[in-house]
Amino acid sequence: MRLLFSPQLNPATETGWRRTWFDIIYRHDTPPSRNFDLLLIVAIVASVSVVMLDSVDHIHATYGHVLYAIEWGFTLLFTAEYALRLAVVKRPVRYGLSSWGIIDLLSILPTYLSLLFPGSQSLLVVRILRILRLFRILKLVQYVEEGGVLVGALWRSRRKIFVFICAVLTVVVIFGALMYVVEGPEHGFDSIPMGMYWAIVTMATVGFGDIAPATTLGRFITSILILIGYSVIAVPTGIYTAELASSLRQADARTRVVDNRACPDCGMEGHDPEAHFCRCCGHALAAPMG
Amino acid sequence: MRLLFSPQLNPATETGWRRTWFDIIYRHDTPPSRNFDLLLIVAIVASVSVVMLDSVDHIHATYGHVLYAIEWGFTLLFTAEYALRLAVVKRPVRYGLSSWGIIDLLSILPTYLSLLFPGSQSLLVVRILRILRLFRILKLVQYVEEGGVLVGALWRSRRKIFVFICAVLTVVVIFGALMYVVEGPEHGFDSIPMGMYWAIVTMATVGFGDIAPATTLGRFITSILILIGYSVIAVPTGIYTAELASSLRQADARTRVVDNRACPDCGMEGHDPEAHFCRCCGHALAAPMG
Amino acid sequence: MRLLFSPQLNPATETGWRRTWFDIIYRHDTPPSRNFDLLLIVAIVASVSVVMLDSVDHIHATYGHVLYAIEWGFTLLFTAEYALRLAVVKRPVRYGLSSWGIIDLLSILPTYLSLLFPGSQSLLVVRILRILRLFRILKLVQYVEEGGVLVGALWRSRRKIFVFICAVLTVVVIFGALMYVVEGPEHGFDSIPMGMYWAIVTMATVGFGDIAPATTLGRFITSILILIGYSVIAVPTGIYTAELASSLRQADARTRVVDNRACPDCGMEGHDPEAHFCRCCGHALAAPMG
Amino acid sequence: MRLLFSPQLNPATETGWRRTWFDIIYRHDTPPSRNFDLLLIVAIVASVSVVMLDSVDHIHATYGHVLYAIEWGFTLLFTAEYALRLAVVKRPVRYGLSSWGIIDLLSILPTYLSLLFPGSQSLLVVRILRILRLFRILKLVQYVEEGGVLVGALWRSRRKIFVFICAVLTVVVIFGALMYVVEGPEHGFDSIPMGMYWAIVTMATVGFGDIAPATTLGRFITSILILIGYSVIAVPTGIYTAELASSLRQADARTRVVDNRACPDCGMEGHDPEAHFCRCCGHALAAPMG
Repeated sequence: MRLLFSPQLNPATETGWRRTWFDIIYRHDTPPSRNFDLLLIVAIVASVSVVMLDSVDHIHATYGHVLYAIEWGFTLLFTAEYALRLAVVKRPVRYGLSSWGIIDLLSILPTYLSLLFPGSQSLLVVRILRILRLFRILKLVQYVEEGGVLVGALWRSRRKIFVFICAVLTVVVIFGALMYVVEGPEHGFDSIPMGMYWAIVTMATVGFGDIAPATTLGRFITSILILIGYSVIAVPTGIYTAELASSLRQADARTRVVDNRACPDCGMEGHDPEAHFCRCCGHALAAPMG
Repeated sequence: MRLLFSPQLNPATETGWRRTWFDIIYRHDTPPSRNFDLLLIVAIVASVSVVMLDSVDHIHATYGHVLYAIEWGFTLLFTAEYALRLAVVKRPVRYGLSSWGIIDLLSILPTYLSLLFPGSQSLLVVRILRILRLFRILKLVQYVEEGGVLVGALWRSRRKIFVFICAVLTVVVIFGALMYVVEGPEHGFDSIPMGMYWAIVTMATVGFGDIAPATTLGRFITSILILIGYSVIAVPTGIYTAELASSLRQADARTRVVDNRACPDCGMEGHDPEAHFCRCCGHALAAPMG
Repeated sequence: MRLLFSPQLNPATETGWRRTWFDIIYRHDTPPSRNFDLLLIVAIVASVSVVMLDSVDHIHATYGHVLYAIEWGFTLLFTAEYALRLAVVKRPVRYGLSSWGIIDLLSILPTYLSLLFPGSQSLLVVRILRILRLFRILKLVQYVEEGGVLVGALWRSRRKIFVFICAVLTVVVIFGALMYVVEGPEHGFDSIPMGMYWAIVTMATVGFGDIAPATTLGRFITSILILIGYSVIAVPTGIYTAELASSLRQADARTRVVDNRACPDCGMEGHDPEAHFCRCCGHALAAPMG
Repeated sequence: MRLLFSPQLNPATETGWRRTWFDIIYRHDTPPSRNFDLLLIVAIVASVSVVMLDSVDHIHATYGHVLYAIEWGFTLLFTAEYALRLAVVKRPVRYGLSSWGIIDLLSILPTYLSLLFPGSQSLLVVRILRILRLFRILKLVQYVEEGGVLVGALWRSRRKIFVFICAVLTVVVIFGALMYVVEGPEHGFDSIPMGMYWAIVTMATVGFGDIAPATTLGRFITSILILIGYSVIAVPTGIYTAELASSLRQADARTRVVDNRACPDCGMEGHDPEAHFCRCCGHALAAPMG
């Protein structure tokens, strides 16, 4: 979180149109800035939808040029917004190099690049990354706290999850190699990486079925791997749930009003509900209310 | 819950057959009303079973006209019940526009409409919606409280779940587009929406296998997506479990007997309900209240 | 648990060989009875393995008659044990009609019946039910308490799980009918029950892939069903975990030694560690130890 | 943990090069030993990658001899390391027979054996076991404690998990036999062990789809098995989460500062660490200790 650039107004232009636009773009608590946010959400969702629709063959065949025009419309809109963001901020270069600045740039660049390198499919994925811009807006409303609790619990359990992932990957490597030897290329296990792909798909209970064991021994090994995966799926859930429950309990404890009496002598607060005397100066306290 | 229309007796007809039938239909605590509920449950389950059986080809071929007759029997029965519900209630129009009123209507309408538009398959789903009527009865017995706890915990965690679903959908969009570019139409990923469908099926560990990665890079990306999905499946469980545990703990705390006597000598509180003397100064305590 | 018949020794034969065998068969805490239990476990596992092996075609072809002989050996052994159980118990008829008595009978009956009705495959499943006899032994060692906690938590959450299963089945019925209408028989959804089977397979994230949506609308509906199933899989885990955590906490609380001082005056125990006077008679207590 | 051999320096050689190398190889807290650990991690990961890459057909065809040379390089390196480990340790034989000693040996032996038995595929899996050596290093850094909590909770819940696995395997045996009888060899269920493999794959929600029910009754039984598996997947998660939450709570409680001062006037205990006066009688308290 601290890595994110917190935009500041250009002090040389603290009045005039720049101040107005800074408030509209970067703040989220005035009616104009809320409307701007809403407009931006709609534009992002619409432009991502256009990219999606354009990838469907029969829609591309019929409406390809319409979607191309709309795409350019959104690109110009986002370009104008990007220029505006740079213009009103105090340190444009630093903004441009921040995470959000790069995501902003990535959401407009591919369309321009497609003029230079026509028909390059891979720019499509870059274009779809603009969906990440939604989080900048989401980040700043009432969902921050909720998201913060979730991410916080994930962050505190990062080491446990790292140890867990290491253990899972070791099991995956060993079972992947085992199945490569047992089943062999004739049943689809044509290399150890392929066996590992199969082991991940199996342990995580996805089970596509594109590769499946065909020998009795292979099926027996699969059953063991599944039982391991089945016991092991409990671990990340357990880690995360325990961590989250602990967070919520602490949050609970903080919001619980223990005692709202203040010492008449030294002003100390937060007394034990059973206390009759201030724990700091020994002065008598009033009787508790509730 | 508050949106639901709570039916009231028509005051102009507070005696006579209408009062009798109002009690039978809308109350759930007298022997006749319990029998009515039971009969309704049987009729709903039977009529839904008829719709299901009729959809099986060889049963339809042999018993089609019998099932058709039974269906009309149930429709007439439900029509009579619907008319009766409207007749005995104080404000029939408001009942008709309430959630339950609309579900009641939807459960009889399709059969009549099938006379006008013969052979329309889509009315079938509407007909099966009558299964929802079961909840009106279930809602009013001893399962309310249990269901209430479950729904309450779900409701309190709605924002966390919304944040979570947004994050999941973002991952789905990005990986869907990525796989569309990497695997391409020749392996079944013929558009970004198709890639997103595959990403949802994979992340949620369903894994039909109708579309599966066929290239090495695609399989590598799949493995990463699965590991993300595997870590992430813990999150809704964690949210819900922590919330539910907190509900149950609070319910526990509420039912625990609290003693509110203060020692007349030293003012000590928090005594054991069984105590007769203050544990701090030995002074006699008043008899406990509750 | 209370439904199970607790075998009692035949009082008329409280000495002699019957008493000896009663102790060997029904008790589990003497060396001979432990050896008997161990022998029985081995016999059950071996006889179930024989049934399994016999179902494999090439093993049946080669060793069929050997396995048939072994099966008869085990059947005679179990028959002798069954006769012995009936002989030494006080009320043989009541034992014969108890759950365990019926399971004992079912484990020997099929082999005799196969003489009358040769080649009847379905007796095979009945024969395999003898694996349930393992639980009679398992039930009586150190795993009782552990299993008791698990079953207890499951039992206390039975109503919540019932409400949950009802909700899941409603979703299954509605989506099954919807997919039947949307996809139709040409994509494998050839009846509503088939659609329901698919919906269960999908919601529970099994995803065989024997039936999979083939239309765009069908895939969209599938995605929604998967997201519902994904949120909903948290519910039984949450119910069960919260209930189990509560059980374990209560067990913890019970084993925690609060205070082991007894009142020198009235002998009252279980005082608050902070108490200086007996809460029952007001007599001064000794200072707490720990 | 206690089973592992804790290496000790050879006392006869407590100075000189052996001491230096002992510190480098077996300690993990000096700069040279850290560099050695890092080098070993890189070598292990690289050599496992070589084994993996060599299993891919087209890589083997092109770079087979290069990979073979690299493999020999790593084998000689690990052989030198193994010899050094034996040389500097006090009791080489005991080290050689410890778990780590055997894993060390297994990671070099297959390459030498491949000279004697050329082309033996099965040595491949043994070779890949050298990935386990990573844990010796991982074991000794900051992840020990985290891993310890996870393994500890798993260990304490071992009996519950054993009971659970027994119950699951019983269900698997019964449903496997049932499906063998109901579906039969013509739908892929050609023996009871095959049915059991299918039941494990289904209950654990993997669902490859290589074998799937084809009859209506089979699909009905499958639906029931899935619903059982769905309810039952909650159990290991519940066990583990409850155990882990209890561990974390105890760890919390241990780190919380406890005040052990008693009021010199009234003997009241359990004061806030910040308190200067007794909350019961107002007498001054001694300064807190810790």
